[in-house]
Amino acid sequence: MFTRPLPADVDVSATTLGGRPALRLRTAPTGTAGEDVLLYLHGGGFVVGSARVTAHISAALLRHLDGRAVSLDYRLAPEHPFPAAPDDCLAAYRELLDSGVDPQRLVVAGDSAGAALAVVTMMRARDAGLPMPAAAVLFSPAVDLTLSGASMRSKDGVDPFFAPADLEWLFDQYLAGGDGAAPGASPVFADLTGLPPLLIQVGSSELLLDDAVRLAGRAGADEVAVTLEVVPRQPHVFQLDDGSAEAAAALERAGRFLATRLGGEKEES
Amino acid sequence: MFTRPLPADVDVSATTLGGRPALRLRTAPTGTAGEDVLLYLHGGGFVVGSARVTAHISAALLRHLDGRAVSLDYRLAPEHPFPAAPDDCLAAYRELLDSGVDPQRLVVAGDSAGAALAVVTMMRARDAGLPMPAAAVLFSPAVDLTLSGASMRSKDGVDPFFAPADLEWLFDQYLAGGDGAAPGASPVFADLTGLPPLLIQVGSSELLLDDAVRLAGRAGADEVAVTLEVVPRQPHVFQLDDGSAEAAAALERAGRFLATRLGGEKEES
Repeated sequence: MFTRPLPADVDVSATTLGGRPALRLRTAPTGTAGEDVLLYLHGGGFVVGSARVTAHISAALLRHLDGRAVSLDYRLAPEHPFPAAPDDCLAAYRELLDSGVDPQRLVVAGDSAGAALAVVTMMRARDAGLPMPAAAVLFSPAVDLTLSGASMRSKDGVDPFFAPADLEWLFDQYLAGGDGAAPGASPVFADLTGLPPLLIQVGSSELLLDDAVRLAGRAGADEVAVTLEVVPRQPHVFQLDDGSAEAAAALERAGRFLATRLGGEKEES
Repeated sequence: MFTRPLPADVDVSATTLGGRPALRLRTAPTGTAGEDVLLYLHGGGFVVGSARVTAHISAALLRHLDGRAVSLDYRLAPEHPFPAAPDDCLAAYRELLDSGVDPQRLVVAGDSAGAALAVVTMMRARDAGLPMPAAAVLFSPAVDLTLSGASMRSKDGVDPFFAPADLEWLFDQYLAGGDGAAPGASPVFADLTGLPPLLIQVGSSELLLDDAVRLAGRAGADEVAVTLEVVPRQPHVFQLDDGSAEAAAALERAGRFLATRLGGEKEES
């Protein structure tokens, strides 16, 4: 099921990518080439969530592109712990490239655990010698599975969705005894050199606020072009709330960020 | 003297503000009301620099406004240590309001030490019950006079302008034995609640990179709308280099950020 209705002009179909089910979204033909591709990775703490739950986010970003979005249903924990999900995401990324997608017309986005998977996928693609996408957007990235950010304490009781113990439980399912501080699990500890321009959006009412801030700092230190936007009094992945003005504005900025970076290095319009 | 030439249509005159000399910049009349005001605070480690050295930055931002820029020559250390400069800046801010400037048409910007003074001025204005400006832009803010950021080590040797000892010497002149960790000296340790939307720009090749990242984190934690942009391979206050494409693009983004926030809360165009 779709949590939120999709606009009538968005065509959705089931597909597979990297051996996993995926949703393919396309807007009504525009008469142009339409070769842009958005790879979307949903959130849900590596345990729940689906491409369908976040389909309206993919559709909102797709408005700014000329092409299609593919949202991946990677394997979930606890049945499939780390590194099943990153393996699926890398396989999907590789299949897009193998099928002829121009990396300069390819962008990646994700929310929460999916944003972490987006970063990890780019790191692993880089290490495998694959080209980078043109840009990536990360909504409330969950990039420190050790929960070491200061906001894990300062926003406890402020965050309307999570207590630290909730996150710890989710991440334990995913790690299954593995090391949460490993760069491939927690990219806030990783070398991010070579990643494409990143836009990170986060709400100020999140336990995960400092994940976003530290990821921006880490990326910047590693010479990655990064923009961080902290939106006051917004909760985790506030972009999911399609009735809110903040969500609409944030998705508009995110879509424009991706659109202006398609085609490789050029200045923002 | 002007370090860089100003465009021919920019009219510059000497004025005073808050009892201090200042430069007043105006572009050729547009026929509209022209009530926007930019208060600019130059950098130079609290010891050197002037309104004239950064006049081309004020002029570039002014392009996006309809009004005037006033760039303040606040008192410098060691002759006038902390809190002489913040006192001058607050007096200037207060005089603008007293003269009838609409705070929703008032924006503040600064570079390096001047960006720190911009934050401190807003904090002190808030504490004095004065209205906030509509927005502020901070270029490479020097907001931790204790030099505790990780980039103070990781970018030592990368930063083409400074070694940590250079900054330490400058800040010692300013502090004159005072406490560098005091929030009024180092806003990275301050409560930033109530500040207006902030845009922070920093280069990745700076000792001060983590000042910017931590200021964004602090502001976000305090419910301030904040955007941080890390521009790869750029040095401290790269916006000063009027021959560079990165500088021009960054100033363009900064000008648009200010312009879209004039008039108070509304969405970015």
